Amino acid sequence: MPLSDRVLMGPGPSNLYPEVVAALTHPMLGHLDPDFLSVLDETCVRLRTAFATTNALTLPLSGTGSAGMEAAFVNFVRPGDAVVVGVNGVFGERMVEVAGRHGADVVRVDAPWGSPLDPAAVLAAHPAPALIALVHAETSTGVRNDIEPVGAGKGDALLVVDTVTSLGGIPVEVDGWGVDVAYSGTQKCLGVPPGLAPLTVSDRARERLVERPSSWYLDLNLIAGYVASGTGRTYHHTAPVSMVTALHAGLGVLLEEGLVASWERHRACGTLLQDGLERLGLELVAPVSHRLPQLTTVRVPDGVDEAAVRSRLREGFGIEIGAGAGQLAGKVWRIGCMGHTARPRNVALVLAALGEVLGR
Amino acid sequence: MPLSDRVLMGPGPSNLYPEVVAALTHPMLGHLDPDFLSVLDETCVRLRTAFATTNALTLPLSGTGSAGMEAAFVNFVRPGDAVVVGVNGVFGERMVEVAGRHGADVVRVDAPWGSPLDPAAVLAAHPAPALIALVHAETSTGVRNDIEPVGAGKGDALLVVDTVTSLGGIPVEVDGWGVDVAYSGTQKCLGVPPGLAPLTVSDRARERLVERPSSWYLDLNLIAGYVASGTGRTYHHTAPVSMVTALHAGLGVLLEEGLVASWERHRACGTLLQDGLERLGLELVAPVSHRLPQLTTVRVPDGVDEAAVRSRLREGFGIEIGAGAGQLAGKVWRIGCMGHTARPRNVALVLAALGEVLGR
Repeated sequence: MPLSDRVLMGPGPSNLYPEVVAALTHPMLGHLDPDFLSVLDETCVRLRTAFATTNALTLPLSGTGSAGMEAAFVNFVRPGDAVVVGVNGVFGERMVEVAGRHGADVVRVDAPWGSPLDPAAVLAAHPAPALIALVHAETSTGVRNDIEPVGAGKGDALLVVDTVTSLGGIPVEVDGWGVDVAYSGTQKCLGVPPGLAPLTVSDRARERLVERPSSWYLDLNLIAGYVASGTGRTYHHTAPVSMVTALHAGLGVLLEEGLVASWERHRACGTLLQDGLERLGLELVAPVSHRLPQLTTVRVPDGVDEAAVRSRLREGFGIEIGAGAGQLAGKVWRIGCMGHTARPRNVALVLAALGEVLGR
Repeated sequence: MPLSDRVLMGPGPSNLYPEVVAALTHPMLGHLDPDFLSVLDETCVRLRTAFATTNALTLPLSGTGSAGMEAAFVNFVRPGDAVVVGVNGVFGERMVEVAGRHGADVVRVDAPWGSPLDPAAVLAAHPAPALIALVHAETSTGVRNDIEPVGAGKGDALLVVDTVTSLGGIPVEVDGWGVDVAYSGTQKCLGVPPGLAPLTVSDRARERLVERPSSWYLDLNLIAGYVASGTGRTYHHTAPVSMVTALHAGLGVLLEEGLVASWERHRACGTLLQDGLERLGLELVAPVSHRLPQLTTVRVPDGVDEAAVRSRLREGFGIEIGAGAGQLAGKVWRIGCMGHTARPRNVALVLAALGEVLGR
């Protein structure tokens, strides 16, 4: 069974921080062991720092980022609730689908794929929605959506934000922006394997938790009883011990570097990469004002077999870049530069390899 | 942050096979990388062998065993469906709760905690249920429930079986017993960290999948598109790559040893442990006819502080044993001997340590 190593420059997973690899091999502990519970508690503390929040209910959920999305809807949407969803990519579309399954009356606000959402249009879409949901960093297009103006104008609505690709890579200010529920993934800018969904819930949102949501596994009323430190901790399900330990380590790397320094490293690598791609004569999809540094979407030049280019990068250079998704399938490549992958060395490598494969 | 090693003799997680620890550190691969997809495909092949099934839809679900339980109900229960659930412990109770949340009209068939379910009573509970659900190995009581007679008499009902604590430790015969949906966990007799739920679905059950279940994350119609090997594999969510690689390795250890040899090792260790506990004058909860070898429930002697005993085992010997749960909280200890932990060395150790702590 071949298991070669890769320079992971797709839309995630990214390469793991060495400290995360080491953490994965820590001796297994019981999910109720005091030593593990202190790792879990410290993970929650570190997540609060990463999310820039004081929310008590901040925790790693036992599923991937998509489980985070599902938790954000199943715990807060009651049948018939008006839910405004901004849609300018795959993950906005997914929010529409997930909210709909939980009985929401979805009001969608579209922007062209590759353009940012218009916050004013989001706010004007419904006079009094129960919930407004936005993707901060659209992994399918490389576009950043503005969250702060929606938080400022949300009124009584709860604001749910997908920070899967943004957390650790660009500023995320949960409390500062008035975000009520944010979820993320571990395999993007945190440099941790996929498998957990960091999640934070404001006290205001907590008062509106659905009492007995259809999902038992993602029921935050019950999960809160396990992650609550101190007395009265109750068993819900067996925590994914190794993954939590890995996240603890990844957040340790992030906070030791410092959030601002991590954002700056992602910014610098993104700029290097994007300048280099343009020097190769390639066209970037996202407008410079709302272009993510950590995930760059590049148009496939006319006449180029996009899948063949990805294969040659993988087989010849051990580099993974991503294909397009949704409306952009076949039309773009997605080049990630996230977490431990966000190093000038990797940018230089992918530019050199791409230049060689494209003959430019 | 202390992270001591432990001899894990609670109800799970158990200690990891060394091959699993090694697999956790394999270089990260993309979730659509051909090398990873071949690991995933082989994991599904190995799961079929472990479950003794030819079911095409056999896969590791991206959540813990409880996510497996939720998937078993959310994908097959339609509102108002009659669902018969056997209840003789925490996990039967959990099935009642999960099925109820998905709209089932639950008919419960109880047996005292510590006794097995009566298959005839389960079959007589409803004339034509849509679904019958049973826990094979009740982790809260150490009791094995008989599955085969229910499979033989199930009629048109789908038979759902929780094999979280049984898979790899005692015979599980999905096809032979007429089980339609079985799910398991990775952290018990498979010697893998918690975080995935092996799941298998019969072709007959597959025809009855709910078309658009409330859960998007656990929607087997969609997940099947990703795990289907060959052409037309579609992205659903980012697979938990490291955990799947770990499960692949754990199943490799299991199948190299052989299922029959693994069952025999668990049986032999269980007998050693249970004989030793009785020699210490302790009383076992489960009747010998339906006593699990891999998870033994022992009554706490009168006048003994059960939590203090567990603390002394943990702090003095680095051994974890489990507390009681549900009705048996405070009344029993649960001693697991599962996966890599199921070795005579560990049995000798826990008996010696327990004898010393109890002064017997």
